[in-house]
Amino acid sequence: MRALRYHGVKDLRVDYDIPEPTCGEHQIKIKLHEYSSPTFIPLKDSPHPVTKESMPVTIGHEFSGEVVEIGSKAKNPSGLKVGDKVAAQPTVCCHSCGPCKEGYINCCDHAGFVGLSGGGGGMSDYVCIDEQFVYKLPDNVPLDIGALVEPLAVAWHGVNQSPLKEGQSALVMGAGPIGLGVIQCLKARGAKDIIVVELAKERQNFAQQFGATHIIDPRYEDVVKRCKEICDGQGPHVALDAAGVAATLKSAALAVRARGTIVNLAIWEKEVPFQPNTLVFGEKKYLGVLGYVNEDFEGVIKALGEKRLQPEKMITRKIHIDRVAEDGFRALIEEKDKQVKILVDCRA
Amino acid sequence: MRALRYHGVKDLRVDYDIPEPTCGEHQIKIKLHEYSSPTFIPLKDSPHPVTKESMPVTIGHEFSGEVVEIGSKAKNPSGLKVGDKVAAQPTVCCHSCGPCKEGYINCCDHAGFVGLSGGGGGMSDYVCIDEQFVYKLPDNVPLDIGALVEPLAVAWHGVNQSPLKEGQSALVMGAGPIGLGVIQCLKARGAKDIIVVELAKERQNFAQQFGATHIIDPRYEDVVKRCKEICDGQGPHVALDAAGVAATLKSAALAVRARGTIVNLAIWEKEVPFQPNTLVFGEKKYLGVLGYVNEDFEGVIKALGEKRLQPEKMITRKIHIDRVAEDGFRALIEEKDKQVKILVDCRA
Repeated sequence: MRALRYHGVKDLRVDYDIPEPTCGEHQIKIKLHEYSSPTFIPLKDSPHPVTKESMPVTIGHEFSGEVVEIGSKAKNPSGLKVGDKVAAQPTVCCHSCGPCKEGYINCCDHAGFVGLSGGGGGMSDYVCIDEQFVYKLPDNVPLDIGALVEPLAVAWHGVNQSPLKEGQSALVMGAGPIGLGVIQCLKARGAKDIIVVELAKERQNFAQQFGATHIIDPRYEDVVKRCKEICDGQGPHVALDAAGVAATLKSAALAVRARGTIVNLAIWEKEVPFQPNTLVFGEKKYLGVLGYVNEDFEGVIKALGEKRLQPEKMITRKIHIDRVAEDGFRALIEEKDKQVKILVDCRA
Repeated sequence: MRALRYHGVKDLRVDYDIPEPTCGEHQIKIKLHEYSSPTFIPLKDSPHPVTKESMPVTIGHEFSGEVVEIGSKAKNPSGLKVGDKVAAQPTVCCHSCGPCKEGYINCCDHAGFVGLSGGGGGMSDYVCIDEQFVYKLPDNVPLDIGALVEPLAVAWHGVNQSPLKEGQSALVMGAGPIGLGVIQCLKARGAKDIIVVELAKERQNFAQQFGATHIIDPRYEDVVKRCKEICDGQGPHVALDAAGVAATLKSAALAVRARGTIVNLAIWEKEVPFQPNTLVFGEKKYLGVLGYVNEDFEGVIKALGEKRLQPEKMITRKIHIDRVAEDGFRALIEEKDKQVKILVDCRA
């Protein structure tokens, strides 16, 4: 079968002679249809401790597809059938470390992702996924939207871990794909003001389409001052940082109200200067979140079925798997602010 | 009456001709007996917005005394009587800003402290305090211990704001006066392992006397590795930072277990380098706390009465108010690690 595999830096290839994966006893085998745009890749000499694989690995961790086989020992409590449209949670975890035992599988000491850490991936013809990570899509949710469940689950998790209540206000730093997901999840959860800080004009427009009530361009306006003005002189209850730079950390910490919470969804490239007093005066919380757990996938899929989440406009382009290395990644780099999610069609 | 007043940098004077304060209708007038060791002082041209006072101000924010007058309109729900031994919560707040209205008086937009921001102070003969901030001491709690309620309330608040449950483990960074208070509060709350990181030998000894179960000297041992070893391979549930330097922030973030919490009790002098990923991987929380609220004073005083807190050994020296500028502050500077709390006797 075909699979897009990562062979090393700047070396992505569609390989055509990959053996089809065998469905494990507790797994579900999925024929892949759609996949949306792709640092957790294990190097050649250090295979991932759970998948035991290293480069080249198949990539693609945001995908949907159709059930073609159900493992002989799968308990299958949700009654999956061959032919069902499904989304997959690409969690790789060891199920035996401290965090796994406490249910924090996203904090597994050996955490990884299908499509990055081995175990197959979405840019392929087939993939086999442990049954507890396969979710039937409601009839009114097509496969292309199913491919957006994973990034939306990241955003959902961030909002879910925050103490935000219906009718409260939120600040979102950055309107890239995750920030746009956060805006939608906030709207679905009944947030009052959804204030978005973003530099790029195209992304500001996306933010507005998805539910932002206020847009702040930090080059022209004082973020902290504007946030206080918008929210009763006190600032939003929660800030969600999907940008992850020193300036967003500082603004978010100063902008939220007393006893407010800053949720960080970003992965940071390096250390930044930080003054903890920005949290101390006002007794604010800073919360690191990472990925998602099963209830986030369930929450997103339910909200999609009920049309509380309507992420259709996140799909800004569709390309065929045979053109992904040339067209897809180039578009993501060259048209960074115009593209949100590029869907890869894996059908023949 | 006498009062130790701050006239400017390095200019502390006992002034002897200060008029006695008049007891406001809703206040309690206290004759001061004991006071323990002292950046919130309003400069000459910018009086504090609540007290309207500026330098020179009377200092002393940790004190106990005896009721000598009760304001004519004081509701006095706890039935205070002239002659009662009391401890005072030196909170200055405006009662009208957003945080005050939500009950977060310690996060008041104009927060200050009696003994720093005007409104009198503990190093004096008399002080008048709003009635909701005056607490009767149990009969078995003498006035010198009453003067320790304020610093213990800072520690109690930090532990109280953390999610620590009985039987869980905690890491304490720094064993200065606040760190030592934290150790005692953790013990009173039934913490299992109380791991203390401290450089100074004298302070390590104090930590052990007050209930530390493990002492780590970070010059000789790897803090993160030791914490994992002590706590099931996973690390403590909570870390409390009473040191407030880049190294303690980093160690605390890496040492706590997945979904653990770092509570910061320190006021930071400057920005420090910080890598948020230390919180992201493991979904950890960083929580700024500041001062205390009424329930912390109530909690400490109850625990003192029940002997769950036994802070006697925190009093390392007693001096008379007339000698405080010469002896007290010099000892605090020159014998920094040997002194915990120096009590100032304000009696004639």
